[in-house]
Amino acid sequence: MKRYAVIMAGGVGSRFWPSSTEAKPKQFLDILGKGQSLLQMTYERILPLIPKDQILIVTNKQYYNLVKEQLSELPEDNILCEPSRNNTAPCIAYAALHIKARINDASFAILASDHVIKDEEKFRSILNKAFETCEQNDIIVTLGITPTRPDTGYGYLQLGSTQQNGLRKVEEFKEKPSLETAIEYVESKNYAWNSGMFIWTVKTIIDSFNKYCPQIIEVLNQAPQLFNSPSEQEYIDEVYPHTENISVDYAIMEKADNIYNISADMGWSDLGTWASLYEYSDKDENNNLLHSDNAVVIEVGNSIIKTNPSKKIIIRGLENFIIVDDQDALLIFPKDKEQELKEALKSLK
Amino acid sequence: MKRYAVIMAGGVGSRFWPSSTEAKPKQFLDILGKGQSLLQMTYERILPLIPKDQILIVTNKQYYNLVKEQLSELPEDNILCEPSRNNTAPCIAYAALHIKARINDASFAILASDHVIKDEEKFRSILNKAFETCEQNDIIVTLGITPTRPDTGYGYLQLGSTQQNGLRKVEEFKEKPSLETAIEYVESKNYAWNSGMFIWTVKTIIDSFNKYCPQIIEVLNQAPQLFNSPSEQEYIDEVYPHTENISVDYAIMEKADNIYNISADMGWSDLGTWASLYEYSDKDENNNLLHSDNAVVIEVGNSIIKTNPSKKIIIRGLENFIIVDDQDALLIFPKDKEQELKEALKSLK
Repeated sequence: MKRYAVIMAGGVGSRFWPSSTEAKPKQFLDILGKGQSLLQMTYERILPLIPKDQILIVTNKQYYNLVKEQLSELPEDNILCEPSRNNTAPCIAYAALHIKARINDASFAILASDHVIKDEEKFRSILNKAFETCEQNDIIVTLGITPTRPDTGYGYLQLGSTQQNGLRKVEEFKEKPSLETAIEYVESKNYAWNSGMFIWTVKTIIDSFNKYCPQIIEVLNQAPQLFNSPSEQEYIDEVYPHTENISVDYAIMEKADNIYNISADMGWSDLGTWASLYEYSDKDENNNLLHSDNAVVIEVGNSIIKTNPSKKIIIRGLENFIIVDDQDALLIFPKDKEQELKEALKSLK
Repeated sequence: MKRYAVIMAGGVGSRFWPSSTEAKPKQFLDILGKGQSLLQMTYERILPLIPKDQILIVTNKQYYNLVKEQLSELPEDNILCEPSRNNTAPCIAYAALHIKARINDASFAILASDHVIKDEEKFRSILNKAFETCEQNDIIVTLGITPTRPDTGYGYLQLGSTQQNGLRKVEEFKEKPSLETAIEYVESKNYAWNSGMFIWTVKTIIDSFNKYCPQIIEVLNQAPQLFNSPSEQEYIDEVYPHTENISVDYAIMEKADNIYNISADMGWSDLGTWASLYEYSDKDENNNLLHSDNAVVIEVGNSIIKTNPSKKIIIRGLENFIIVDDQDALLIFPKDKEQELKEALKSLK
């Protein structure tokens, strides 16, 4: 069975203001200061496992050029463009139908373009096992993260005792819990963080759509002969906006009963907030995450300081702050108030 | 007697980092956000009293173009260029010799280009009286500021009981005092802040140089026929760097015994520090000095927030801070620690 990786790169990354903008969201930024965007890191992470011909990027039309620039080796036909933002379910269904048109018998992993993983070897070995398992059984495989703390920012997978090839059955998808509930989850050892990465065969996921969310396949599959043809984009531009706007979690995962999880502790983060970037990154001796070549930082601790690296900086007397200075915007905000940043953003013109 | 105004505009304004840079110092900046630079404000303030043909700007050569741009109406010949930074005494002597070459019988006021004055009518009426008094008597007139607080950032003029045309004699120039001494000064009513503005006839100031600091005149006046000639700049380029590097306070004012002061309360500030800019400026309802068209500022008080006006800003949780964001530099510093900013600046690359 031919294996594909589908990287979703259409998000707007609104929580990483001001670094992330709709014109150039988080996945296209070198947010870790490593000389590579998160998308480029995601691509290179999967490349030892899946050849580039079988790596697809699904993104919004407006990011086509950004993807092409950043992944210049990738065949242009491997960039699938959504004409509208309809959440993850239509995006995944489109990828499945496209792959089906390429080859009848295939499996694929759905990956986010803006997550980070420290232990890449482990990631690939887990993915490999997930592919094997879903190819041999008509199941959906979730890639769960072994919780290292009672994080209230993630969804959780409740794991049962039934197993398939060593994978535990997912009994239920749980929304972000309260701290108290999260502590219970972690202590019970029966829960994993939902990373949003899934592995399945094309047949299994299309069958699941037909069963649990048929509208999307009905809309997208009116002219199956047009997938993987020169008319695909024109066709998608016409039909895609009519699909239901819904996440794959709601459309499929919360309903399906053939979901099995493979858990791993591999240094994963979805970099969902400035604080999570801070937690994930290496800090200096004052516990600051400082991206700058020319900074004088006095009596500043536990803070993120992110500016254009060539900018001169003098900062004194801040504790536990997010300081981000971009071309068009300046953010100075207490790190522990980050959840209120969204509200402040609405007040900007 | 023909009256001139000589505006000194050669300083580097190092205390207003990062807004002020050596390439474009404080006097050339719209530091008050009024659509005019401090130099332009100084020029327009004096214009109702002195016609533009009699307004001279003495500046460093590197700022010639900035002056020409900002004061486009000013005759080009009225920009005198220093080839080196030798402090105020050589600068004033040069201006005096230049004016003398234009007209034998003249008086002039020496003005700073980077100060502000709220009551401009009062300023001009005082200057007028100062001109009258120095033209009728062989004296130096200082423009003292009636102290409104025991400021330790200014030099003080100690005033005696002898009077000339209602002006009190200056007994002594006092360096920046301690707070205790400053309180005594203010309570005694016998002290004024030294604004650095002086008014004299060309004859009186040249005589004073000859008496108290002859080296400067000897060096500059080797070829008096070259002043106000096409060869003036070439000549100045050659001789000026050989003058003594000294302030007019040390060279003349602390030695002369014919100094009289005219005091005024006219809303003057030398804008010597960020804090003094803050004190001088109008604040919003949270006592913030905020120059921005698009800012969300939460739980921030008693602070200066200065960025490119079009920049988006979200700031939360700062009290009594200086926040200045320029193209090339970002400063976030406690307002009451400003005196330590100079030290921090030295640590920058």
